Amino acid sequence: MWRNYLKQRQVQVEAAMETLVPARADEPLAEMMKAMRYSLFAGGKRLRPILLMAAADAVGKDGGSFLHAACALEMIHTYSLIHDDLPAMDDDDYRRGMLTNHKVFGEGMAILAGDGLLTLAFEVLLSQPDSPPATLNRVAREVAAAAGPAGMVGGQAIDLSSEGKFPSPQTMALMHSLKTGALFRASIRSGAILAEATEAELASLTEFAEKFGLAFQITDDILDVTGSDATLGKPVGSDERNQKATYVTVYSLPEAQKMAQQAVTEALASLEQFGEKAWVLRSLAEYLLTRDS
Amino acid sequence: MWRNYLKQRQVQVEAAMETLVPARADEPLAEMMKAMRYSLFAGGKRLRPILLMAAADAVGKDGGSFLHAACALEMIHTYSLIHDDLPAMDDDDYRRGMLTNHKVFGEGMAILAGDGLLTLAFEVLLSQPDSPPATLNRVAREVAAAAGPAGMVGGQAIDLSSEGKFPSPQTMALMHSLKTGALFRASIRSGAILAEATEAELASLTEFAEKFGLAFQITDDILDVTGSDATLGKPVGSDERNQKATYVTVYSLPEAQKMAQQAVTEALASLEQFGEKAWVLRSLAEYLLTRDS
Repeated sequence: MWRNYLKQRQVQVEAAMETLVPARADEPLAEMMKAMRYSLFAGGKRLRPILLMAAADAVGKDGGSFLHAACALEMIHTYSLIHDDLPAMDDDDYRRGMLTNHKVFGEGMAILAGDGLLTLAFEVLLSQPDSPPATLNRVAREVAAAAGPAGMVGGQAIDLSSEGKFPSPQTMALMHSLKTGALFRASIRSGAILAEATEAELASLTEFAEKFGLAFQITDDILDVTGSDATLGKPVGSDERNQKATYVTVYSLPEAQKMAQQAVTEALASLEQFGEKAWVLRSLAEYLLTRDS
Repeated sequence: MWRNYLKQRQVQVEAAMETLVPARADEPLAEMMKAMRYSLFAGGKRLRPILLMAAADAVGKDGGSFLHAACALEMIHTYSLIHDDLPAMDDDDYRRGMLTNHKVFGEGMAILAGDGLLTLAFEVLLSQPDSPPATLNRVAREVAAAAGPAGMVGGQAIDLSSEGKFPSPQTMALMHSLKTGALFRASIRSGAILAEATEAELASLTEFAEKFGLAFQITDDILDVTGSDATLGKPVGSDERNQKATYVTVYSLPEAQKMAQQAVTEALASLEQFGEKAWVLRSLAEYLLTRDS
């Protein structure tokens, strides 16, 4: 049942993005739009939009009414992947089984495609229909804070400066919470705020978001060791080769598995007050322990 | 008198940015903030913030009340310079007489410093105090549109893909109007919207903005030929060496000078209805014809 929900939401998000980031036939801007769309439609799981919508569902609103905000989060996530893959950053040739953006369009265009997606995301988010401007502005500030220097960009900066240095467990945890956790948190909080959650509901969903983000990151690190090239769409073991600090390298595989289980248990506990309405969030958290990509 | 105004506004903007983008002593984020601040405090003219404030002045509000929005525009401008200078783009080693961001902090950190400034700009803009949420929402959308794929990033993409190709005068004009004109236009319109301009006032200021942006770009191209390395802070003649299409290479130096004069005349004409209150905008337009950097 929840796989159906997932599929349905993915189709909804992709149809909306098709309209919000349309292909252009007219040069000279066609190439840039092509570069943006290449990564945007590269088969992502659309986890952040789905989390936003599922959080709104949990509060009792139809998450599908917040597609602009949902798509904006996917655009920000996609921009971050494009920039992360650049030669000056992680220098990756493949992502999701496809050549990375800069391998196809060149480095300059890849940088611009990322810049374009990030900027357009704010325009799209702030154009979310049927939400009061004060709510939209609050959500946009929340998303900007999560994506910016005190969030995702900051996490990436820590990652960049600690490569090959085997940072402390504290630094690694901070890096992950900024690089990945902050945007998950903003996705879930944005859905709750758009759905006019009470402060108590928002607090519980924030707690859920933090545990979810942690479990996601730990299982991501586990997959880099236990996954297969084919299902991941990228070479396994790249963290170790790049001397990256991960939950597996800093702790151990069994320890990391135990930590992931613990984070999911805590995530589920924070959803109690929402009853049946939180079933998608519950399924998403449980899925983290069995995912293969 | 207007040079005093200019100086006073620059001091105001820099003091505000000092608070909005503070230095951090704590590693591991200190280096990234240092990279952001290196370019932000590299002695820019603060033209976009000043245009925003002067447009608000023209409408009869104190432009100094809109410092958050003003600083956001400078942050977006600065991010665009950092990314433009990258090896994969214009590959410039110097700007304003200083080493470019990536020459000091490395390419990866320079990309992140730009990403960080762009994202933080939206958070700062949306935190502008004492403006109604609907107004801020409108301004932020305006700025995002001007900075994004249909604006500045699009202009840069055209620039990137037309280097060495001597594009048509039409393509060159489109490139400049997107790459530089769009953000000038958004700066002036944002000031007007924040100051609650009437639709008629907004239309006149938009007309001014378009002529101002055109005159700025033409005089910029002229300076690349007639300026000196010392006052420009970068090597003159780089447009010709890089086979860039400019108003001087596509037309001629005397023709470009005539076009700049014409644009300034039209810019001034569009300010008639504002009387004395538009004196700063007038001075800024006239200054374009005599500037040496």
